[in-house]
Amino acid sequence: MYRTHTNGQLRAEHINKEVTLAGWVQKSRNKGFMIWVDLRDRYGITQLIFDEDRSPKAVMEAASTLGREFVIQVTGKVIERESKNPNMPTGDIEILVSDLKVLNPALTPPFSIENDTDGGEDLRMKYRYLDIRRAPVRNNLVFRHKVTMAVRNYLSEKDFVEVETPYLIKSTPEGARDFVVPSRMNEGQFYALPQSPQTFKQLLMVGGLDKYFQIVKCFRDEDLRADRQPEFTQIDCEMAFVEQEDILNTFEGLTRHLLKEINGVEIGDFPRMTYDEAMQRYGNDKPDIRFGMEFGELNEVAQHKDFNVFNSAELVVGIAVPGGNEYSRKDIDKLIDWVKRPQIGALGMVYVRCNEDGSFKSSVDKFYDETDLQKWAEVTGAKAGDLICVLSGEKNKTRAQLSALRMELAKRMGLRKANEFAPLWVVDFPLLEWDEETERFHAMHHPFTSPKPEQLELLKTKPAEVKANAYDLVLNGNEIGGGSIRIHDKELQSRMLNYLGFTPEEAKAQFGFLMEAFEYGAPPHGGIAFGLDRLVAILGGQETIRDFIAFPKNNAGRDVMIDAPAPLDSAQLKELNIKLDL
Amino acid sequence: MYRTHTNGQLRAEHINKEVTLAGWVQKSRNKGFMIWVDLRDRYGITQLIFDEDRSPKAVMEAASTLGREFVIQVTGKVIERESKNPNMPTGDIEILVSDLKVLNPALTPPFSIENDTDGGEDLRMKYRYLDIRRAPVRNNLVFRHKVTMAVRNYLSEKDFVEVETPYLIKSTPEGARDFVVPSRMNEGQFYALPQSPQTFKQLLMVGGLDKYFQIVKCFRDEDLRADRQPEFTQIDCEMAFVEQEDILNTFEGLTRHLLKEINGVEIGDFPRMTYDEAMQRYGNDKPDIRFGMEFGELNEVAQHKDFNVFNSAELVVGIAVPGGNEYSRKDIDKLIDWVKRPQIGALGMVYVRCNEDGSFKSSVDKFYDETDLQKWAEVTGAKAGDLICVLSGEKNKTRAQLSALRMELAKRMGLRKANEFAPLWVVDFPLLEWDEETERFHAMHHPFTSPKPEQLELLKTKPAEVKANAYDLVLNGNEIGGGSIRIHDKELQSRMLNYLGFTPEEAKAQFGFLMEAFEYGAPPHGGIAFGLDRLVAILGGQETIRDFIAFPKNNAGRDVMIDAPAPLDSAQLKELNIKLDL
Repeated sequence: MYRTHTNGQLRAEHINKEVTLAGWVQKSRNKGFMIWVDLRDRYGITQLIFDEDRSPKAVMEAASTLGREFVIQVTGKVIERESKNPNMPTGDIEILVSDLKVLNPALTPPFSIENDTDGGEDLRMKYRYLDIRRAPVRNNLVFRHKVTMAVRNYLSEKDFVEVETPYLIKSTPEGARDFVVPSRMNEGQFYALPQSPQTFKQLLMVGGLDKYFQIVKCFRDEDLRADRQPEFTQIDCEMAFVEQEDILNTFEGLTRHLLKEINGVEIGDFPRMTYDEAMQRYGNDKPDIRFGMEFGELNEVAQHKDFNVFNSAELVVGIAVPGGNEYSRKDIDKLIDWVKRPQIGALGMVYVRCNEDGSFKSSVDKFYDETDLQKWAEVTGAKAGDLICVLSGEKNKTRAQLSALRMELAKRMGLRKANEFAPLWVVDFPLLEWDEETERFHAMHHPFTSPKPEQLELLKTKPAEVKANAYDLVLNGNEIGGGSIRIHDKELQSRMLNYLGFTPEEAKAQFGFLMEAFEYGAPPHGGIAFGLDRLVAILGGQETIRDFIAFPKNNAGRDVMIDAPAPLDSAQLKELNIKLDL
Repeated sequence: MYRTHTNGQLRAEHINKEVTLAGWVQKSRNKGFMIWVDLRDRYGITQLIFDEDRSPKAVMEAASTLGREFVIQVTGKVIERESKNPNMPTGDIEILVSDLKVLNPALTPPFSIENDTDGGEDLRMKYRYLDIRRAPVRNNLVFRHKVTMAVRNYLSEKDFVEVETPYLIKSTPEGARDFVVPSRMNEGQFYALPQSPQTFKQLLMVGGLDKYFQIVKCFRDEDLRADRQPEFTQIDCEMAFVEQEDILNTFEGLTRHLLKEINGVEIGDFPRMTYDEAMQRYGNDKPDIRFGMEFGELNEVAQHKDFNVFNSAELVVGIAVPGGNEYSRKDIDKLIDWVKRPQIGALGMVYVRCNEDGSFKSSVDKFYDETDLQKWAEVTGAKAGDLICVLSGEKNKTRAQLSALRMELAKRMGLRKANEFAPLWVVDFPLLEWDEETERFHAMHHPFTSPKPEQLELLKTKPAEVKANAYDLVLNGNEIGGGSIRIHDKELQSRMLNYLGFTPEEAKAQFGFLMEAFEYGAPPHGGIAFGLDRLVAILGGQETIRDFIAFPKNNAGRDVMIDAPAPLDSAQLKELNIKLDL
């Protein structure tokens, strides 16, 4: 027994008890005749006291040699603390140490093990095991566990069965790049790591499992953008004999349960919005609806004047920034520079100051009078004291630019509050999207997504207009889940793969097993997958998923702690029947 | 809404209710004026009745076309069944169908979807989604879920935190072969899939997480023996500030909880046995103690006579087979043939009949008289009516052979009862084992296992005699878990890697991060890992782990359903900077 109690456990009621504790030296203060040590473990911090009058001499001496992060074991008596610390759960007591054992000494850590560390990102990643000792990181990992337990218990209660699907599967050309695994036993052949268990969960529905879930690692070999990981975790779910409405209700229930259980927030029915509406009102298919600043489309009131920039634009669209009239000319110029940055890509920005006296002052006064601007204010919902920001150009690009501006301004104004939760269903996504590069349609969700049944005919004539039974769950401007009702009819699935550019031979080679399965009595089914890393980060009120992953990889896909990936020796390659081709 | 109830839900209390059900046609009986259909889903079977007097004509006609495994939706009234079936939960009622919709027709399945199917292993694997429709397979998957939920909730209650460790890690030469993953972004470099999260869980202990667990897929690229899978699932656990006793108590608690929760069996303190004792008494480090037939070592009483086979043997050892005197001469000859099979490898078997009258009759009467044989009976515990089977030769081989015979006989006698549970801790495993092939020591558990502290000196002189703080949990003759107290001292870890044949450079390249971690305050720690597939199979009273895996691979490591692994096209290989080398 290394300890009788943890370092978060002892209270006034334990006074006079003899205890043994173990942990790390958080810090020590040596006043010569007395030494105080903060002893830390996962559960808390307990103050130790070494007193030359009351502790054995050898113990006193040993205590004076303790450095930060030494691992020690102490035995002593719980005593009342002279100066109590009401901010610490154990702040009423301290331990008068009678015996001390150094279990393991420690070098000085490369950064301080404090809530606010002085360690940079790179150092923290290299010594991740030290970073995890810091309460914020450790708490995130414990928080993640709490969330996954809540998910599992909720779904399990609702008759969902967690089934493990295989990790060594087959590579498919659709979607992102696969990570692959050479097979030694099957020469010249490769497994792929799953980008998601999509086909397996559909087969489980064909297999009559009815309600499936799995918290599962998925893999994508993509060039990593910030906050993307090559391996990530999904809450993967599928149900049989369901319509879209059943899925939305079930997983709205799960999300509501998590918000209540984890965050103590009660939320009623989640609002729903079509994809088209989300794009029109927020320029974004995952709008943050914690705040307003909705888009006002200004084509009708701003075109057909003499301002050619607007006249030639597909879309003229603005938002009213609350209190934005307070911005100085310099502030506004900076904002214009911001939207013109290459990452945003706007060519310029028109603005209208809504003065307190009801008058307007715009950057395009030459072309628009007060009556015109009054209409702009009406369309964007601007009030006296606001600033109207207007962008124009090609519809999709302009929406994306204005959406970025809306999010940036909200952030600056503190409207994106971490402890406020605004979920939203976005439904009726387009089935297909045109890919300029390959000049063909891609599945917007994936090739197994069912088109709206009433639009099946339209698929032949205007495929771009067909909507899918596909939905995203959005939380605070992040897509936390997405799914669809699947195709369960072999003919329709074949047609869909055909639309997506698969030859019948390719379709058979890649998805033959699924289409064959559909011939043996496939039930209607659908599902959803949540991005667990993102979900946990948002519930935890943070932005960066990396802080909720125990051992994340960097942007080059490297684990800098263990230094992976790494070269293999040639014998190992030979055994796998491959060689390097650099 | 596809259904108001599932097919396992309706009872007499629902009579006269209008319901909608959906599911698969299990079977139908058509008497012309009446048609009965058994409608199946995951939850049960409900009988439907179509009656030409009471069902609409079109519905009656549609019902007559239903084939097995058609997916249908019906609406109708719950009525009392004329001939009730007390063996079915829904056996009191049936549904008088007023509306029928075929949701998806089905081809005739390649094997019958019945508890006892006519489908062979190969066909069942190729159409695994149909196999899963069969209650025994489906129930196994649901059972597995129940076990994992019980494990998670138990450990979570005990303050264990489930942490996801990475799947894309670094290849190590120690242990079995790794599956590897070429990195596109890090040219010429490879990740490896984890054989276990061993080093990561140790780093989590260095990181102060205190109690970790994870139910996690692990990967081993080994030539597959029967009932081995290239990907398998572990319940992986680690604790800090613990001694072996703490680990044994904690996971004995978990196992006891599972046996009670899942099997309704209450079991007291688990017996413990040293490795040496297990080898001596059962010839096996994972003895099945549901039955006796313990080994009796006969060297003292059987050597130094004229029987040279025994005189020259390192070990002469026997077991008493209860009631074995009933075996005919032919039975015994078959048994001798059985031990001489190449898989067992004995050169022969000596036997002694223990007659009811107290006399003995042996196959070596030429060399041993009644007094000698009386002593054999005493040593093996044989009673009148038993048969003593004796093998001899090199110690380890002979023990393995006699252990195989003991298990085989117990199986034939029905002593290995699936619903009886006999757990056992085997402790004090040797630290090292000599590998004849490579002519060096291997770690018996793994290179991070701590030797018994009191034997550290012996490590220098007689390494083969050093025991480890390593333990296995054995259940019904299967190792279901194994673990050890780990080394947490950098110097000792270096020495251990040196004993195992690592040069200092290799040690640093492979495990440098771990040894570096040990310098920053590593706590004493230890852990255990359970083989979930095996554990679930044993708790489920079955032998084959494959029946508890949704989508298992065959002995060649292939998934015959999706036909993986498969060749990649050359562009994909080029992008990964590898080429085939066949």
